[in-house]
Amino acid sequence: MDRVPEPLRYEQLAADLSALIAQGLINVGDRLPSVRRLAADRRLSISTVVQALRQLEERGLIEARPQSGFFVRKPPPALDQPETRAPPISPTPVDISNRLVRVLQAGLQREMAPLAAALPSDELLPIAALQRLYGTVARRHPRLLTASSHGHPDEPALLRQLVRRSLAWGGPLAADEIIVTNGCTEALNLCLRAVTRPGDTVAVESPAYYLMLQLLETLGLKALEIPTDPRTGMSVEALELATRQGGIAACLLVGNGSNPLGCVMSDEKKRRLAALTAERGLPLIEDDIYGDLHLGDRRPWPVKAFDKAGNVMLCASFSKSLSPALRVGFVAAGRYRSTVALHKTISSGGTNPLTQLVLAEYLESGAFERHLRLLRRNYRQQVEAMQHAIARYFPAGTRVSQPQAGYVLWVELPDGINCSSCYEQALAIGVPYVPGELFSPSRMYANCLRINCGHPFTPAIDDAVRRLGTIFAAARG
Amino acid sequence: MDRVPEPLRYEQLAADLSALIAQGLINVGDRLPSVRRLAADRRLSISTVVQALRQLEERGLIEARPQSGFFVRKPPPALDQPETRAPPISPTPVDISNRLVRVLQAGLQREMAPLAAALPSDELLPIAALQRLYGTVARRHPRLLTASSHGHPDEPALLRQLVRRSLAWGGPLAADEIIVTNGCTEALNLCLRAVTRPGDTVAVESPAYYLMLQLLETLGLKALEIPTDPRTGMSVEALELATRQGGIAACLLVGNGSNPLGCVMSDEKKRRLAALTAERGLPLIEDDIYGDLHLGDRRPWPVKAFDKAGNVMLCASFSKSLSPALRVGFVAAGRYRSTVALHKTISSGGTNPLTQLVLAEYLESGAFERHLRLLRRNYRQQVEAMQHAIARYFPAGTRVSQPQAGYVLWVELPDGINCSSCYEQALAIGVPYVPGELFSPSRMYANCLRINCGHPFTPAIDDAVRRLGTIFAAARG
Repeated sequence: MDRVPEPLRYEQLAADLSALIAQGLINVGDRLPSVRRLAADRRLSISTVVQALRQLEERGLIEARPQSGFFVRKPPPALDQPETRAPPISPTPVDISNRLVRVLQAGLQREMAPLAAALPSDELLPIAALQRLYGTVARRHPRLLTASSHGHPDEPALLRQLVRRSLAWGGPLAADEIIVTNGCTEALNLCLRAVTRPGDTVAVESPAYYLMLQLLETLGLKALEIPTDPRTGMSVEALELATRQGGIAACLLVGNGSNPLGCVMSDEKKRRLAALTAERGLPLIEDDIYGDLHLGDRRPWPVKAFDKAGNVMLCASFSKSLSPALRVGFVAAGRYRSTVALHKTISSGGTNPLTQLVLAEYLESGAFERHLRLLRRNYRQQVEAMQHAIARYFPAGTRVSQPQAGYVLWVELPDGINCSSCYEQALAIGVPYVPGELFSPSRMYANCLRINCGHPFTPAIDDAVRRLGTIFAAARG
Repeated sequence: MDRVPEPLRYEQLAADLSALIAQGLINVGDRLPSVRRLAADRRLSISTVVQALRQLEERGLIEARPQSGFFVRKPPPALDQPETRAPPISPTPVDISNRLVRVLQAGLQREMAPLAAALPSDELLPIAALQRLYGTVARRHPRLLTASSHGHPDEPALLRQLVRRSLAWGGPLAADEIIVTNGCTEALNLCLRAVTRPGDTVAVESPAYYLMLQLLETLGLKALEIPTDPRTGMSVEALELATRQGGIAACLLVGNGSNPLGCVMSDEKKRRLAALTAERGLPLIEDDIYGDLHLGDRRPWPVKAFDKAGNVMLCASFSKSLSPALRVGFVAAGRYRSTVALHKTISSGGTNPLTQLVLAEYLESGAFERHLRLLRRNYRQQVEAMQHAIARYFPAGTRVSQPQAGYVLWVELPDGINCSSCYEQALAIGVPYVPGELFSPSRMYANCLRINCGHPFTPAIDDAVRRLGTIFAAARG
């Protein structure tokens, strides 16, 4: 699992055009040369050119206007990105659950603006197709719910699809290292239970996804926050330093689309991370739930793709791309396979085989790739629209992340604005968010917040962001 | 939740007849008076008499012969029951998983006799009906898998059915204390995680279900084995003594159909247990998965029914009665409701709502009660047939449990026969069982084993038990 492919012809053309745009050699509002002209000039086929243009369109760089051709779009607003911060150098016991519960419950109320939980809008998901498949699969496989199917290996059809999909990011995974789980959440649980004991320390990103911190809390684990660059992800150097002293039981991170930063680590960095953790015998638990939802040109590889030692446990699910209610995820657990499988049996038995097969048939149908393409375009536009709104409405000096995967934004307000203090006011006007402090066991990030962009950007959402901006402006005093 | 109902008329008749049989006033092979005669003599309606006779038939005391009436059956064999043993008085760290894995994996191979895992035979379960419901429910409720259904309360239709069913055993449960889970296994996990911290001690039955011991192991908990009478269950006095010294974080038990003993605690004992744990503020986690599968006259009440303090967390599922592959269970968590709900979110998110509704509709259809009646009769006959076979084939001096719920037997061989040592031989001839040592963290019960009776008793199973007997006879030397 370690070879980086050459760029394809269409990708090369897309890269060349986007460089011209970035350098200002083609301006906003300019029309691109026609497809025919580009094909002739570059000695490419029409379909290759169309593919390149479609990629630029998906990245939001150009837009098609009927009867007129492709035009360069207005670039995203020029808000700075947040800077890396220095967390405490000692592990911190985790205690965020009680503060978090109220926030998450509040965000789920239907009359609230959907800015808190990282959930997509229902209208973006292929719910009807999945529900139809339940009927078809149940009819065609009448013995799925028998006792003899219980305790046996997961559904081979699903394992096949997972292996096949991994070819897109440096796989293949081995079918026998995969364990199907009740969502990515259970996968992360199983991995942590497999390689840690209560009292152990786990290295995490800073800021880190609050669910991961809750997990550490309930398992009696301490968190060591590793400095994380909002552009390039966790510092491998800082992790290396921390592991020198020993005492770290595992590393838990999101290599592609860190939640909340949205950053994607470079291949080079992933390669070094895989080598470091293998050398130190440090189990790496990688959450790749946003890998399929990258916002760039190609599917980023997970750290798992650079792992030669079987040291990385890759966890993912289809909750962010198909349906959060399906509750099917998986872990490819490498050399920890049998321990993780044991924990799965003890934690919840097997995973419903009928639901496994529904997912397998959906993936097999080919509809998934088409759906993902559309979904990525929607997420890209929604993220960009939200960035614009934040630039319009939030106080001067606000910084915002530039996510490369996923659909959340990390916002840093000017110093002195406390997002935890403002939270009650925001809730009162129906615009809950997740305060930054919940992404850090040492309660860093008081002036930060995470905003969900999983919903189409409507005037109602625009108005919600505006009202949020008013609260923050007042808090600045 | 605390009132014991008067026996109904048909129950009184059944009790009177069974007493006559037990006292030898009606002999094996004798014909009972006709329905008409009984109705006239006792001044009862025909249907009341039929109901009484059906109950005796279900209990295996009488059998119907076509055109001839009801006859008294041969009683079960006269093997003694095992005696209560005295476990260590200090908590024991648990370390059984590694030994257990091989046993459970081996038992799942298809060519093996189904005596190891406590699973029913597929032919006894309403698999086809459940699978059909998946199609119907998916079609009739097209929005079940949406993101907006995620993170919200469990399906109201299922909660309603669970509340309604609880009326049969001293309920009602409150709908808002119920959390739907991925099987009973997850429910037990959540309860333990909610009320213990690593290093804590949990009081368990002796012998205790191995999965419970594994759970303690993976959560870093110690087990305190409480003496348990094979007829009447955990000693409340011993638990009381143990709690006097403090240091027990929770009590975990099966009040109805202890696994492996099959015993059902008396109402009086349950009442004392509920009072004791409430007085000491000791959370009680009760696994009631076998409550619906009682082998006696009426649904035994769980300890939960005697709990006035909200101190008991009742866990159950439909894995033993409908389908182990469905993976839907629940916990009624009393005053620990919000903590358990939090742990559910962190452990695996919600529970698939489509599967929840499939279960709800099956329960609502009324088919479940008819199915349970038939299932209990089958389990009763299978358990009895297995007892006969053990009496025939196992060494003299063997003792066997007389289960009042569930479908496993606990067998105590004469001293000197080590069931762990014999296990490899049994596996080699395709007849795996679960060795007794796996039911005790202090490795008591070396001369005991658990046998599954979830399958119809066939000549092949008879032969398997015979060959097992040969191995044990040889081991006695």
